[in-house]
Amino acid sequence: MTVRFGLLGAGRIGKVHAKAVSANGDAKLVAVADPFAAAANAIASAYGCEVRTIDTIESSADIDAVVICTPTDTHADLIERFARAGKAVFCEKPIDLDTARVEACIDVVAKTKGKLMVGFNRRFDPHFMAVRKAIDDGKIGDVEMVTITSRDPGAPPVDYIKRSGGIFRDMTIHDFDMARFLLGEEPVSVSATAAVLIDKAIGVAGDYDSVSVLLQTASGKQAMISNSRRATYGYDQRIEIHGSKGMVAAENQRPFSIEVANGDGYTRPPLHDFFMTRYTEAYANEIAAFISAVEKGTDISPSGADGLAALKLADAAVRSVKEGKLISVA
Amino acid sequence: MTVRFGLLGAGRIGKVHAKAVSANGDAKLVAVADPFAAAANAIASAYGCEVRTIDTIESSADIDAVVICTPTDTHADLIERFARAGKAVFCEKPIDLDTARVEACIDVVAKTKGKLMVGFNRRFDPHFMAVRKAIDDGKIGDVEMVTITSRDPGAPPVDYIKRSGGIFRDMTIHDFDMARFLLGEEPVSVSATAAVLIDKAIGVAGDYDSVSVLLQTASGKQAMISNSRRATYGYDQRIEIHGSKGMVAAENQRPFSIEVANGDGYTRPPLHDFFMTRYTEAYANEIAAFISAVEKGTDISPSGADGLAALKLADAAVRSVKEGKLISVA
Amino acid sequence: MTVRFGLLGAGRIGKVHAKAVSANGDAKLVAVADPFAAAANAIASAYGCEVRTIDTIESSADIDAVVICTPTDTHADLIERFARAGKAVFCEKPIDLDTARVEACIDVVAKTKGKLMVGFNRRFDPHFMAVRKAIDDGKIGDVEMVTITSRDPGAPPVDYIKRSGGIFRDMTIHDFDMARFLLGEEPVSVSATAAVLIDKAIGVAGDYDSVSVLLQTASGKQAMISNSRRATYGYDQRIEIHGSKGMVAAENQRPFSIEVANGDGYTRPPLHDFFMTRYTEAYANEIAAFISAVEKGTDISPSGADGLAALKLADAAVRSVKEGKLISVA
Amino acid sequence: MTVRFGLLGAGRIGKVHAKAVSANGDAKLVAVADPFAAAANAIASAYGCEVRTIDTIESSADIDAVVICTPTDTHADLIERFARAGKAVFCEKPIDLDTARVEACIDVVAKTKGKLMVGFNRRFDPHFMAVRKAIDDGKIGDVEMVTITSRDPGAPPVDYIKRSGGIFRDMTIHDFDMARFLLGEEPVSVSATAAVLIDKAIGVAGDYDSVSVLLQTASGKQAMISNSRRATYGYDQRIEIHGSKGMVAAENQRPFSIEVANGDGYTRPPLHDFFMTRYTEAYANEIAAFISAVEKGTDISPSGADGLAALKLADAAVRSVKEGKLISVA
Repeated sequence: MTVRFGLLGAGRIGKVHAKAVSANGDAKLVAVADPFAAAANAIASAYGCEVRTIDTIESSADIDAVVICTPTDTHADLIERFARAGKAVFCEKPIDLDTARVEACIDVVAKTKGKLMVGFNRRFDPHFMAVRKAIDDGKIGDVEMVTITSRDPGAPPVDYIKRSGGIFRDMTIHDFDMARFLLGEEPVSVSATAAVLIDKAIGVAGDYDSVSVLLQTASGKQAMISNSRRATYGYDQRIEIHGSKGMVAAENQRPFSIEVANGDGYTRPPLHDFFMTRYTEAYANEIAAFISAVEKGTDISPSGADGLAALKLADAAVRSVKEGKLISVA
Repeated sequence: MTVRFGLLGAGRIGKVHAKAVSANGDAKLVAVADPFAAAANAIASAYGCEVRTIDTIESSADIDAVVICTPTDTHADLIERFARAGKAVFCEKPIDLDTARVEACIDVVAKTKGKLMVGFNRRFDPHFMAVRKAIDDGKIGDVEMVTITSRDPGAPPVDYIKRSGGIFRDMTIHDFDMARFLLGEEPVSVSATAAVLIDKAIGVAGDYDSVSVLLQTASGKQAMISNSRRATYGYDQRIEIHGSKGMVAAENQRPFSIEVANGDGYTRPPLHDFFMTRYTEAYANEIAAFISAVEKGTDISPSGADGLAALKLADAAVRSVKEGKLISVA
Repeated sequence: MTVRFGLLGAGRIGKVHAKAVSANGDAKLVAVADPFAAAANAIASAYGCEVRTIDTIESSADIDAVVICTPTDTHADLIERFARAGKAVFCEKPIDLDTARVEACIDVVAKTKGKLMVGFNRRFDPHFMAVRKAIDDGKIGDVEMVTITSRDPGAPPVDYIKRSGGIFRDMTIHDFDMARFLLGEEPVSVSATAAVLIDKAIGVAGDYDSVSVLLQTASGKQAMISNSRRATYGYDQRIEIHGSKGMVAAENQRPFSIEVANGDGYTRPPLHDFFMTRYTEAYANEIAAFISAVEKGTDISPSGADGLAALKLADAAVRSVKEGKLISVA
Repeated sequence: MTVRFGLLGAGRIGKVHAKAVSANGDAKLVAVADPFAAAANAIASAYGCEVRTIDTIESSADIDAVVICTPTDTHADLIERFARAGKAVFCEKPIDLDTARVEACIDVVAKTKGKLMVGFNRRFDPHFMAVRKAIDDGKIGDVEMVTITSRDPGAPPVDYIKRSGGIFRDMTIHDFDMARFLLGEEPVSVSATAAVLIDKAIGVAGDYDSVSVLLQTASGKQAMISNSRRATYGYDQRIEIHGSKGMVAAENQRPFSIEVANGDGYTRPPLHDFFMTRYTEAYANEIAAFISAVEKGTDISPSGADGLAALKLADAAVRSVKEGKLISVA
């Protein structure tokens, strides 16, 4: 079976998914929709698919699944429409910035027996997958303490930040998901600190640019997250998991693995400077997992519930900073 | 000038300092005191010094300085006695487990115009010193976020733990000092989580074996500390500092820098398995700094005030865990 | 302009090039030829091209260029035929195992004003390219000494070895090309040692499995090459260049950049176990360079002359081992 | 038993050995001799020993062993004198630059049943010892191919070079010894190339500054040595051994294990810039091994025969360069 795709949104991330779908032998990109005709046409021309409206894709019999890459505030509505239309849905994170809206959306998906995958791409990074596999293979025993470092090369425009839901819901949410993925047990408490150290305009916009978070599970497992909107040396993405028998860590990635040595010392190049080059394989693996689950009718992961759980941790982190205390999560 | 030393306590750490003093060209080990005659005699014989009582050392005209390596509950009293006796004092951490007692002791030192150095040996590790120098040299701009990882190869006996003041005052206190040393600004809040993941007997003794701490300064600088009483791969001691212009980190140390590669992969040996081999140079540098300050009459660092500040952070961490909230420190 | 391709040979390496051509936006795979219909059909079906005979491809007006992936003993003939037919030719190394035959072939290419690129794929590895760029950017000053390590995960079948021309012409030839690429000056002498240490059957077949080579240029620059047909830890491919101002090196590559630490030490996974996964990007870059040169009418590199030069070094190495002396090359 | 030492020569390396002897609990430095009174007095004062003449030391009943750190051209004579005097002898390499003289000297040692250790300090480096142990423990199976990289931070004065016997006898000789130590089988052939790439004055003095050497044993094991008189990034000392089951390598050493990351990449500091700081532990271990062998009456290694074997390989390398061929060694 070939899974036939409609792509909603032809922007930056839409292009990534168009390429991943087209390169996958079990999938076919049938149509793309975008209010900007030029963007839709560019994808249509590059990958040999049609341009259709969202409405038309919704009613297209030749489309089995959609990839939602539209603005965040349209996600929940589109998920509901396409779940009702019987299409499998892959949606970029987040489902919505409001937990009540996310819960309502997940209800609709459940009632329509829909399929929904949320785009936590990092779970599909080959290096992080190898870490997960090392844990599953018993290499480190029981997981006890997780450290996640996630630093962006540079801050996004303040306009983006204003619409982002704040650093915890926009950036840390990936790390909350990763912590859940690695801890193997739900966090029950969140403590966070946050500050504006990089750009005062971010503070004026009501957000932070440098945050630290502690999570703890019922049995006492702990996760620490360190986030910054700036890393002069590139896109810093590390995880380190300590267990009862040992430790496993994923190293940073750089485009060129060379080293120059001279009187100043030994220098390796900066890391990737962009999430798309850093996570190229993760995006392809993610879509492949979605296609495989749709084809085989198996459970989809990460699910809407995973999206909701990460959002609740983000909300708790926001409260922890405001109230200066540890916040319990159900 | 040669600084003439009396050593109080001939146990494990006493031997380390006896060796460091003896090997230092500007110092001379004159006498050692210990209630266990065999221990004192062993040091006397190895380093060619006399065995005296503490009382005799206190009144010895041929002794300029003492190194206090006796049990913790004797530290404050001995510091006061020897400050009053006009001897420069190097005391192993902590001064005391009770902040009021520490404050009283520091008062006595101040009133007697005494000299007191507290044994936060890690400040003198050549690798951590190089990190500090990189910061001072402006290599990373303004310090913003610090991550300290400190994991012991194995837990001490439960009997030790009962007398230790708990993991925050016994183990994390080194990391609190290191955070202060590196942040360059006093922490104003502490959030901590703690659990018993390794050995239930530690929990029965009222302590934890796995803890995570967040510190924040008034300007928003943050430090994260991760501690465990167990690391199967050796003594894990890392620091990583992010600043406005970049990052500097100190790597772990191992006794043998080799790598074996075969079908299982590339394997480097475990780290040092003991704090004394890991920090051999730090102990020698520490005593050298004390000797130099005594000789030249310069300020001594880390001082009693540094010991007190770290203890207050430890107390705040204990409260944070108990009360489930961020604790402000003056 | 789109460069339209015919693929000669649908075996293992043919598939690699079929994929690279098809994925390149400036090229189109028009036809494939292979005596094994199933192999040709598989490529035709996967990439939407036709199956034709070599004769038909030779006379096809809709084909601008060919990729020769047929057995080695057909290379020179096919290069000549397609050069005469006015097609640009990309040929897998080697052109031939006999230098006289290679020279004759290059003559034909020259007389027909043909375009010929020889498949020294490693020049296009992004890490080795970054090394070359570091040299070109003056990072290490004048190149002085080069060390190349090239070890295969395992020996090929003895049947292959018998037809291979021997380890120097089959395996070391890549390193001879890399040495020429990096030294920036032609070697004038070759010293080699060789032994059978891995598999006696290789010796019975008249070949070696473990060889070491020294090259020197007229001005005294030196290159050392270490080759083995076995590396239990994966495909070992390193280069290290020392210059008047410093050193630049390319590190090995592994599929998963993780590290597991426990009582046995710190272990990273083995390297790639296959040249195709190790050099995936190199193959794509190589074809892209060929396409670009054909499109723009620019010089092609590595050329037939490069293939010839490397072969002459291989011949000299064979002689050096046999005669126990340094062999001068013109 | 305490081994009582006389030190002959109070120069740079003499100081290293004075310190190592004095710090060793099983040895005592009794006397030092040097024609420069100031140098001898400095050591006498620092370590509490007497200043005596060489003649007096030779006849001193309170001296069991000597360390010879005098100029090279005095070594063989002094070894013979002190062997005849019944003192155990530790002599800095080389015994002499002439093999016939070395053979005669070894004869005298044998006839007098003397004890002689030659100062190939690198065998006692803890990292190289760990490599040797990994081989002995069967971690890599049978040794097959060895690569030794040895690059000095900078060239010595030309005056030194003139008296040095040339780079092969002065510098590469350490690597010849290391190759023998690691191969576990005697080399039977030597091929070398050599050039002047760094400083023309070195060429005018009749020497080279950049050399490459291939060694092969009777069974086909191979060693490659790369030497340069200049390394801008510090003292480059690496060994890598490939065996039938895997590889073991010793990494370079640097004084500070930190890393700074910024827009220019990730930079670790240069290596040690001096052989004395790089090999501090090796010098102490070396003297400890000598003391232990003298105390216990066990065999001494490396012996005079080891010094002779390395010198013969150096002589063969010189001939190989001159004659442009592989040189067989007995």
